[in-house]
Amino acid sequence: MKIALKIALYQGPGAVNDPQAAFTLMQRKAAEAKARGADVLLLPEMYLSGYNIGPENARRCALTAAGLAPARRFAKEQGIALAFGYPELVGERVANAVVLIGPDGEILLNYRKTHLFGELDRAMFEEVGAQFPVARLGGYTVGLLICYDIEFPEPARRLALAGADIILVPTASMEPYDQVARHVIPARAYENQVYIAYANHSGQDDGLSYIGLSSICGPDGKVLALAGTGEEMLLAEVAPEHHAAVRRADPLLADRRPALYGPLVK
Amino acid sequence: MKIALKIALYQGPGAVNDPQAAFTLMQRKAAEAKARGADVLLLPEMYLSGYNIGPENARRCALTAAGLAPARRFAKEQGIALAFGYPELVGERVANAVVLIGPDGEILLNYRKTHLFGELDRAMFEEVGAQFPVARLGGYTVGLLICYDIEFPEPARRLALAGADIILVPTASMEPYDQVARHVIPARAYENQVYIAYANHSGQDDGLSYIGLSSICGPDGKVLALAGTGEEMLLAEVAPEHHAAVRRADPLLADRRPALYGPLVK
Repeated sequence: MKIALKIALYQGPGAVNDPQAAFTLMQRKAAEAKARGADVLLLPEMYLSGYNIGPENARRCALTAAGLAPARRFAKEQGIALAFGYPELVGERVANAVVLIGPDGEILLNYRKTHLFGELDRAMFEEVGAQFPVARLGGYTVGLLICYDIEFPEPARRLALAGADIILVPTASMEPYDQVARHVIPARAYENQVYIAYANHSGQDDGLSYIGLSSICGPDGKVLALAGTGEEMLLAEVAPEHHAAVRRADPLLADRRPALYGPLVK
Repeated sequence: MKIALKIALYQGPGAVNDPQAAFTLMQRKAAEAKARGADVLLLPEMYLSGYNIGPENARRCALTAAGLAPARRFAKEQGIALAFGYPELVGERVANAVVLIGPDGEILLNYRKTHLFGELDRAMFEEVGAQFPVARLGGYTVGLLICYDIEFPEPARRLALAGADIILVPTASMEPYDQVARHVIPARAYENQVYIAYANHSGQDDGLSYIGLSSICGPDGKVLALAGTGEEMLLAEVAPEHHAAVRRADPLLADRRPALYGPLVK
């Protein structure tokens, strides 16, 4: 059964090249989100290491699932789900990944960015991602994407077609990409009739200036919560009756005509 | 060679159930747009008849290509391209269509709505549309969509993949669909790196209250011109150097991974 589920996201400068400090901050933010009634806390892309750290640092900070143990402990201690970006060590390769840990401390989902962003990403990461997994959380189907992925309509569409109710999107977005935060996120939520939480960094990071503007959008495209450019926690509620009403009013997924979309996969 | 091309769109109540009056207004608006330097004038969905007119009136007002002769004459007289919605008679069937007429009076494109909108559309129109044609105008590749079509990412994507630089979208959008005007149009322009002009009705029409909010958006998602809720003409320029720079800066179309999009066509 679906009950109202409260999403929190943390926008902030985090900790750069210091996973231990990032874990400590995560523990504090998890407690704060829980105290404010949240069921899940989303943190930005490459939260554990910082994003703009270059290939040597990305490899040095990269973790396998075993390295996520502290986050699993915080999730279980607080009884809150946690989703955050991190550099993942996949064999010898480094992937740009996001993990979703349930409130019991179990790993529910791990997603590897499928659409790498220019030289920045390609210097640090290999193109490991090719799957769009979903998992169940509190009666909802949840999917994950990372930053540049959401600028393409196809990845979010894949998750919606797989039944996603909620898409969590850690990001590291800088000037001049404010159109993504302002328009693309609500449009993705609207066209797929899903909730989207989009968690960005704020502040500076080795010459990059993050724009903040994290948001949580509803399945009718309404912006439920929007951050400014500084450190901030956002909260918004997933309302199952409203969600169902939106999908009844306009059957946007049922009205698709897949037989006409052939050229999209060529 | 591409030169700067100025797009005009007319948002207004038009003329309902009176194609003769609609043609007269079109002639006046074509002259006005030309006087303001426009190369193409876009009018709303079902401009020639009004949108919310029911099946008998839609059939009574429906035209074949021969019935478009007055518009072809205005286009040639003024030396301006014209695009407008109309009920098209296709054999025995009535389609929700839009035509693009070149500044020489020739018909360049005719598009039939592929995604019919609920009971409103289905009462008036048969699902005739299954093609996404493009044509050349002033050195640009132009495609057409109608209203509900643009709420799905796939039709605009098809046009972008077919090389479209500009997508003209007549619409008839009412409450509560302002999220489409405010967010989906700039997002479509951004994700496909195309210019989009979106021309709505204003005013009332047999119980429907149109929201206006017509717009012209650039290939970086910037809103170049945005109407209010009343009668208005918008103008904006297609700038080929800016367009090329946007596509160079972020290769959003080249960075697609079609091999991962299979479920979209199932």
